[in-house]
Amino acid sequence: MLLCDIGNTSYHFLEAERDYKKDTLSFDPVTIKEEVNYICVNPKIKTILKDLPNWIDLSTKLDMGKYYETMGVDRMVASEAIENGIIIDAGSAVTVDIVKDGLFQGGFIYPGLNAMSKTYKDISSALEYPFNFNIDLNRLPKNSTDAITYGYLKTLYAEVTSHNMNIILTGGDAKEFAKIFPDAEVDENLIFKGMKKILMHS
Amino acid sequence: MLLCDIGNTSYHFLEAERDYKKDTLSFDPVTIKEEVNYICVNPKIKTILKDLPNWIDLSTKLDMGKYYETMGVDRMVASEAIENGIIIDAGSAVTVDIVKDGLFQGGFIYPGLNAMSKTYKDISSALEYPFNFNIDLNRLPKNSTDAITYGYLKTLYAEVTSHNMNIILTGGDAKEFAKIFPDAEVDENLIFKGMKKILMHS
Repeated sequence: MLLCDIGNTSYHFLEAERDYKKDTLSFDPVTIKEEVNYICVNPKIKTILKDLPNWIDLSTKLDMGKYYETMGVDRMVASEAIENGIIIDAGSAVTVDIVKDGLFQGGFIYPGLNAMSKTYKDISSALEYPFNFNIDLNRLPKNSTDAITYGYLKTLYAEVTSHNMNIILTGGDAKEFAKIFPDAEVDENLIFKGMKKILMHS
Repeated sequence: MLLCDIGNTSYHFLEAERDYKKDTLSFDPVTIKEEVNYICVNPKIKTILKDLPNWIDLSTKLDMGKYYETMGVDRMVASEAIENGIIIDAGSAVTVDIVKDGLFQGGFIYPGLNAMSKTYKDISSALEYPFNFNIDLNRLPKNSTDAITYGYLKTLYAEVTSHNMNIILTGGDAKEFAKIFPDAEVDENLIFKGMKKILMHS
């Protein structure tokens, strides 16, 4: 069985236990002949896949009533994967979603690493520093690198930890964020877990 | 006595009790003949003012040892204005600085309203919503407008309020931010207070 999570920049495949990525700009989905269960947040690719009968849109098997209309399907599927916890999906955006007793409670969206770096730089060249993921968030900053790092990460940390729940980190920047959330569980295949669960129950 | 706080977009003057702004692109400082005590974070204008003997740079009268080298002089002067509290200066960047017993403890930098709006929009057109300053931050969002608003403002709120200190709001967006920090004191002339204090003690 082939699973695929399609975002804005890549197709993320899982084949048995092996996962790999293909660039959305260069990969042609017609080249795959076997059955693929997929979810997709990329509108262009969604249109292409509609005409390929071996590509099966798993979002049609989701109970959408548990979520809200404009919510990304990747956030819904990640939420399906857990019973209790707070999910941080650190990609081009950082989405944070809370699940209690298997029910989605709500969530929010924060800028991803690259987007936020650019934001500071665009405000002023005086704020063009790389983030310091080894920062001590218990100390108020007294230098520019830490002042923007703390601004980006301590604010997120303060809100996330205020919920006192298990934290599950996923997405392309999960390992970087794990330095800030040392108690979090990193699970880069969380969305595939959600997809398998939906398949099992459909 | 004329005081002036010069930022990237405007000269902010205080003459007796009246304050007014002039655009940095069109205003010519040579037109002012009386003595002006100023601070300036705009490098270009700084160079021009150096040659005008009636423009007096107040930053030379600051005890810089209390702060850090690359810190904006406007943050230093705002910090001089208070004995205890947490200052939120909401402009093109949002700077947050903590003062205890008249001593700067450290601070951080967060993106301003316009910058952060652009950030979400640039990540995806699906995140192009105006912020909702009437949001209830005690409820987890279940719609896109609130999901980005909460991401921008609840994170900041959680960090700022964790310090359990008086909050003083200043800067061009102070009134918008006051909706999120209802217990904060709004003082749009905080920097002028700091400047007067420096003048009195120098």
